[in-house]
Amino acid sequence: MKALVLEKYNEFVLQETDIPELKPGWVLIQVEACGICGSDVHGMDGSTGRRQPPVIMGHEAAGTIHQIASDVMGWNVGDRVTFDSTISCGECFYCKRGDINLCDNRRVLGVSCNEYRQNGAFAEYVAVPSHILYAIPENISFEQAAMIEAVSVAVHAVAISSVQANDTAVVIGCGMIGLLCIQALKATGCGKVIAIDLIDEKLKMAVELGADQTIKSNNPYLIKLVLGETENRGADLVLEVVGIEQTVNLAIDCTRKGGTVTLVGNLSPEVKFSLQKVVTRQLKVQGSCASAGEYPLCLELIASGKIKVDPLISKVAALEEGNEWFHRLYNKEAGLMKVILKP
Amino acid sequence: MKALVLEKYNEFVLQETDIPELKPGWVLIQVEACGICGSDVHGMDGSTGRRQPPVIMGHEAAGTIHQIASDVMGWNVGDRVTFDSTISCGECFYCKRGDINLCDNRRVLGVSCNEYRQNGAFAEYVAVPSHILYAIPENISFEQAAMIEAVSVAVHAVAISSVQANDTAVVIGCGMIGLLCIQALKATGCGKVIAIDLIDEKLKMAVELGADQTIKSNNPYLIKLVLGETENRGADLVLEVVGIEQTVNLAIDCTRKGGTVTLVGNLSPEVKFSLQKVVTRQLKVQGSCASAGEYPLCLELIASGKIKVDPLISKVAALEEGNEWFHRLYNKEAGLMKVILKP
Amino acid sequence: MKALVLEKYNEFVLQETDIPELKPGWVLIQVEACGICGSDVHGMDGSTGRRQPPVIMGHEAAGTIHQIASDVMGWNVGDRVTFDSTISCGECFYCKRGDINLCDNRRVLGVSCNEYRQNGAFAEYVAVPSHILYAIPENISFEQAAMIEAVSVAVHAVAISSVQANDTAVVIGCGMIGLLCIQALKATGCGKVIAIDLIDEKLKMAVELGADQTIKSNNPYLIKLVLGETENRGADLVLEVVGIEQTVNLAIDCTRKGGTVTLVGNLSPEVKFSLQKVVTRQLKVQGSCASAGEYPLCLELIASGKIKVDPLISKVAALEEGNEWFHRLYNKEAGLMKVILKP
Amino acid sequence: MKALVLEKYNEFVLQETDIPELKPGWVLIQVEACGICGSDVHGMDGSTGRRQPPVIMGHEAAGTIHQIASDVMGWNVGDRVTFDSTISCGECFYCKRGDINLCDNRRVLGVSCNEYRQNGAFAEYVAVPSHILYAIPENISFEQAAMIEAVSVAVHAVAISSVQANDTAVVIGCGMIGLLCIQALKATGCGKVIAIDLIDEKLKMAVELGADQTIKSNNPYLIKLVLGETENRGADLVLEVVGIEQTVNLAIDCTRKGGTVTLVGNLSPEVKFSLQKVVTRQLKVQGSCASAGEYPLCLELIASGKIKVDPLISKVAALEEGNEWFHRLYNKEAGLMKVILKP
Ligand SMILES: NC(=O)c1ccc[n+]([C@@H]2O[C@H](COP(=O)([O-])OP(=O)(O)OC[C@H]3O[C@@H](n4cnc5c(N)ncnc54)[C@H](OP(=O)(O)O)[C@@H]3O)[C@@H](O)[C@H]2O)c1
Ligand SMILES: NC(=O)c1ccc[n+]([C@@H]2O[C@H](COP(=O)([O-])OP(=O)(O)OC[C@H]3O[C@@H](n4cnc5c(N)ncnc54)[C@H](OP(=O)(O)O)[C@@H]3O)[C@@H](O)[C@H]2O)c1
Ligand SMILES: NC(=O)c1ccc[n+]([C@@H]2O[C@H](COP(=O)([O-])OP(=O)(O)OC[C@H]3O[C@@H](n4cnc5c(N)ncnc54)[C@H](OP(=O)(O)O)[C@@H]3O)[C@@H](O)[C@H]2O)c1
Ligand SMILES: NC(=O)c1ccc[n+]([C@@H]2O[C@H](COP(=O)([O-])OP(=O)(O)OC[C@H]3O[C@@H](n4cnc5c(N)ncnc54)[C@H](OP(=O)(O)O)[C@@H]3O)[C@@H](O)[C@H]2O)c1
Ligand SMILES: [Zn+2]
Ligand SMILES: [Zn+2]
Ligand SMILES: [Zn+2]
Ligand SMILES: [Zn+2]
Repeated sequence: MKALVLEKYNEFVLQETDIPELKPGWVLIQVEACGICGSDVHGMDGSTGRRQPPVIMGHEAAGTIHQIASDVMGWNVGDRVTFDSTISCGECFYCKRGDINLCDNRRVLGVSCNEYRQNGAFAEYVAVPSHILYAIPENISFEQAAMIEAVSVAVHAVAISSVQANDTAVVIGCGMIGLLCIQALKATGCGKVIAIDLIDEKLKMAVELGADQTIKSNNPYLIKLVLGETENRGADLVLEVVGIEQTVNLAIDCTRKGGTVTLVGNLSPEVKFSLQKVVTRQLKVQGSCASAGEYPLCLELIASGKIKVDPLISKVAALEEGNEWFHRLYNKEAGLMKVILKP
Repeated sequence: MKALVLEKYNEFVLQETDIPELKPGWVLIQVEACGICGSDVHGMDGSTGRRQPPVIMGHEAAGTIHQIASDVMGWNVGDRVTFDSTISCGECFYCKRGDINLCDNRRVLGVSCNEYRQNGAFAEYVAVPSHILYAIPENISFEQAAMIEAVSVAVHAVAISSVQANDTAVVIGCGMIGLLCIQALKATGCGKVIAIDLIDEKLKMAVELGADQTIKSNNPYLIKLVLGETENRGADLVLEVVGIEQTVNLAIDCTRKGGTVTLVGNLSPEVKFSLQKVVTRQLKVQGSCASAGEYPLCLELIASGKIKVDPLISKVAALEEGNEWFHRLYNKEAGLMKVILKP
Repeated sequence: MKALVLEKYNEFVLQETDIPELKPGWVLIQVEACGICGSDVHGMDGSTGRRQPPVIMGHEAAGTIHQIASDVMGWNVGDRVTFDSTISCGECFYCKRGDINLCDNRRVLGVSCNEYRQNGAFAEYVAVPSHILYAIPENISFEQAAMIEAVSVAVHAVAISSVQANDTAVVIGCGMIGLLCIQALKATGCGKVIAIDLIDEKLKMAVELGADQTIKSNNPYLIKLVLGETENRGADLVLEVVGIEQTVNLAIDCTRKGGTVTLVGNLSPEVKFSLQKVVTRQLKVQGSCASAGEYPLCLELIASGKIKVDPLISKVAALEEGNEWFHRLYNKEAGLMKVILKP
Repeated sequence: MKALVLEKYNEFVLQETDIPELKPGWVLIQVEACGICGSDVHGMDGSTGRRQPPVIMGHEAAGTIHQIASDVMGWNVGDRVTFDSTISCGECFYCKRGDINLCDNRRVLGVSCNEYRQNGAFAEYVAVPSHILYAIPENISFEQAAMIEAVSVAVHAVAISSVQANDTAVVIGCGMIGLLCIQALKATGCGKVIAIDLIDEKLKMAVELGADQTIKSNNPYLIKLVLGETENRGADLVLEVVGIEQTVNLAIDCTRKGGTVTLVGNLSPEVKFSLQKVVTRQLKVQGSCASAGEYPLCLELIASGKIKVDPLISKVAALEEGNEWFHRLYNKEAGLMKVILKP
């Protein structure tokens, strides 16, 4: 089969490789669309150590079932499916509680690190265990389905934030995940959503996707404006979707006493924050990691139109062009959000 | 009446003052015991700006009802009572939700700041509104009842930490509040409690009050030891009761994926912490501030012996000696925990 | 002032009475609109014992502040306001927890029973304590504001039902409260809402107000149809808003394993239900009573158009016509939902 | 191997049968102890249709691993283990949420019904899939470990009842499960536990195992006594562990406004209850079914002595005597609780 292989750091080559073997409990999927994830882009230069060449990356994919191991029940050749980006073990402390995002033995598709190599979906075929499959509703295209991992990050972050009807939320960072968070909040009955970003274009998109107010993050009256929108209290809930010290502290400052800050962004390893504000204002500051069981809900939200992914897809390109698009993303070309490759 | 007045910063004088006036809805209490709080000690030198002289401090008190405004129902002269350290307004957003610790209009007894002056209980009499009174069970002494504010801080921190039966918890810092947290955890069905402190003496007390394991906080194998006690996962719950950068990060490192860090300590205004650990391990890091409705539960826990306060009372002294004891606490005399003054 | 007085059972007379006295902490409100509640209608014939003549009924009202006791802060003459139907005590076990609907000392406005008489708002003026007032947003009319109690019943029932994004809910009974429940569910991020009633007209209204599917409650395939809409599982959540044995059991049968049945309807004193289904399917069957703190949220939901009350107002009439409208409601005139009287 | 086979209804015969085959993912366990469950006893006469002969019953067992399929990781021959009574599928809607007790495809060990036959543990060997195994701590005997299913029913019922520290609970029915509920409540930080039963002997045991108060269920002042123990409010939480109309209604009457009734008992198919009490007092009445992930916690609670099972074991007998003990249980011999058979 054709596959886009990271031959050495920073160099992808489309080449002929073996079709993956079909183990008991697994299915073989003919890939129709696979998105390039930020972690793939960061990994291509070797800095993360988690994409050691040679490896076929790609964990945001959708396709049709091509072959099924004999012991797999409930699926048929030809079924349109997407799947978890991660293979959870199903047996560890976390899996048994349903916290599959915290699985002790998780393997991410398309990752090659010291512990394991698990080829991914930038190829004609990919093999995955049947327990991570989800059927795609008819009115969702393969490209849309390939957005599900990004959608699930937003939906999970909102799900653990216990939104009450008509709460006011602030979303800091209107990149791809932030824009999905705005939509997930609205789909969850959140009231006013205030979007914050540096760039006007992003804020315009935020409004198109449901934000009620926007503020530039360099506005010197930012906190005052948030207070003005919240009866002088601060927001019930703030989603931080940038991941740097400045915006983490902005998140804390925008939150009302007793409110919740959900941390999605994680660019900076360490940040300084105000311990005394968190304690005396009794804030809940919580990390949100990937997703845990939200895929079916995500598919429903996309199918019902409550979450729109098309505006976030910058480009659908042929697998052949993979090397080029990886490099354009690596160079942070302005305006590029999700790029999807089709084998 | 006699009262211990902060005449100027760092100088308390026992002097004759007027008995407080009795407003509608208020009662006058003959004080039998009043504890010296850390915030009183920090406030005596003017550094916090919240004990501007002249002021009668004191908000951890117990006594008997001496006089009752005509419109107050349900209380009688002679009733043995304690009361909230704080007067909540009952009408703001937070009070209506039961979050009285976050009240927008709270006034702490014994505080004199730019916004208000509210004389406290280092005096023969103190006046408080009836809605903050609690009857003291027969088997609790006035001195024990004066410990209730400290107890309530611990009980509240545990209450918002959603302990599951037999969870493993780590308590970092075995000062007065930490030792109460250990007891509150045990009273809430927590399983193993691991106590961490710098000083052997404190760790000995921790064990006497219910801790199952102890670790010196400078032990180089600390994290390994915690992992060893938790099937290599980390604790379900960590209470940070020191309030400095080192221990906040220790708390984060001791917690299992998906676990909770409750921040009680708040010495350092700001601390640096690992954003990426909090996000990728999906930790919940939450502040805990004072208490919100836990006083009746605290009285029950003291009455039933599940929380022991006697070991935490270092000294019961006469109000006349107030100036001396304030200075001994100010100078951090080793081994001093709670000092209670009796008018 | 003019007031509609229940002179003897079943007979209302418009007469001149004294303006209520203004106690400390209270305000006098010039009534602009007051709805007739089902409990008023049931009470007029003496059967409930809670409307003993002579009494001025009326607890679903809105108006402008006419006079203010000297100790009341934060309100001005002329303010447009609505208020809780019930005066909670603020001091009992339940009030301190924020569960004001369960207050041990609650007094309903317009009720006259063995324990108390509290004249209500079918009059030119009514007196209420300031702590139960809420300002009416500009774009809400007095008549709309007078619907707030009914709205709050629905919003509270949904609030305690912990709706997850895109849950499927069934609402049994599309009378006034049921139609509000449908809207409250949608405003809370609920996914599919299936409405059940006996009458086509009601089901048509249900769809207009947001229901996704409707089923006649005498449809022999009802359960099958619900299963068909829920991947053969049953609904995550069922709201029972009729209150009789048949529909309570229907609610249990429509619910998926581990799901929630919220009981709002309470016509029948006792009903037989399937203990074994509740235990072996691990259902949560919970009562919902009145509301507890949801008034501000209700006003926001009405103001934002997420909850529409106009379709539920059958008639706005002059206070003079009160006797007639009470009797038309008493005789269950078809199609009558809320009737609002204007002094 | 030797096995106790239900040859025809009401007749068990000890006979030689084949050792179960070892499928991929499964282990073979040498049984050391297996308890007789109430459902086995009810099933032996054919009335439930779930023990169709010939079948080897038994799902409350413990033993040592004898053989391991080649693809099973993490277990060794000789390991001391117990296991879930039920094989959950791991793939259905409920399993993915961690609600394995509600699994759509669950198979109970030792059950033979229309859908499946799954031989159980009244035999020298039993085969189970590795994902339901739990290692037995050293200080727990095989007989104690065989009690884990009963323990887990109690621990699960308490776990879903969200006990707050020092809550007052009532347990109605002090049979085997009720006595375990009392202990589970105490282990979870519950305050006062009031035990109710018909028989003095059972109430005496309740006190020995931790109950603070006892009341005979035919005491005409029962409700008054419960109110007297709860500041006239009723209990925060009531566990109903009998399962008949009288005690379900007793449970409702003992509960405070806003409190929780957890239904464990399920003898009567249907019961009449007071709809209006549940609605106007806003009670939460919830079923509790089996357990979902509580086995590790149960083993810890037994190991730590917080839950004592020895007093509930009436007899440990040889497998040869199985037929006799089944019949003595079937005839409800007074004083018999758990009977454990050893192959
Ligand atoms: N927790 C998880 O499971 C998870 C999963 C996926 C991603 N993430 C993290 O989530 C974050 C967002 O991911 P993404 O894919 O949405 O990235 P992205 O598209 O780069 O979005 C980040 C957005 O934040 C904006 N921004 C940068 N600095 C800002 C500031 N000071 N104030 C306001 N906005 C600012 C950026 O504007 P510019 O375009 O001008 O820079 C951009 O619009 C990243 O940290 C990523 O690592 C976490
Ligand atoms: N959130 C709230 O509502 C609230 C209310 C009251 C108090 N507090 C805060 O809670 C904290 C504790 O109060 P407290 O009254 O219990 O104070 P404390 O009696 O001084 O206790 C602090 C304890 O932490 C120990 N400690 C210091 N550095 C440590 C380290 N590196 N590792 C481990 N242990 C260390 C101290 O040991 P040494 O004695 O050797 O220093 C002492 O035993 C303070 O920050 C206080 O401001 C918060
Ligand atoms: N818990 C609380 O705090 C609270 C507060 C207010 C009201 N309530 C209760 O809530 C219930 C509803 O109040 P409401 O004001 O909405 O009354 P309503 O307007 O009379 O509504 C009841 C609706 O249920 C329908 N219905 C009757 N039998 C039915 C059946 N077998 N299947 C399906 N639908 C059926 C009725 O249809 P028809 O018109 O054909 O009869 C009507 O549309 C009442 O029991 C009331 O007492 C409770
Ligand atoms: N939900 C689940 O997952 C689950 C699991 C296992 C069992 N169960 C159910 O739980 C219930 C208890 O099981 P068990 O094994 O503990 O049964 P058990 O040993 O027979 O216990 C029942 C107890 O209730 C007492 N009792 C009977 N009538 C009473 C009354 N009117 N008032 C107070 N006490 C009364 C009985 O006393 P006498 O001995 O005098 O009759 C006996 O002590 C049963 O209904 C069983 O089916 C449920
Ligand atoms: Zn796992
Ligand atoms: Zn307040
Ligand atoms: Zn009250
Ligand atoms: Zn299953």
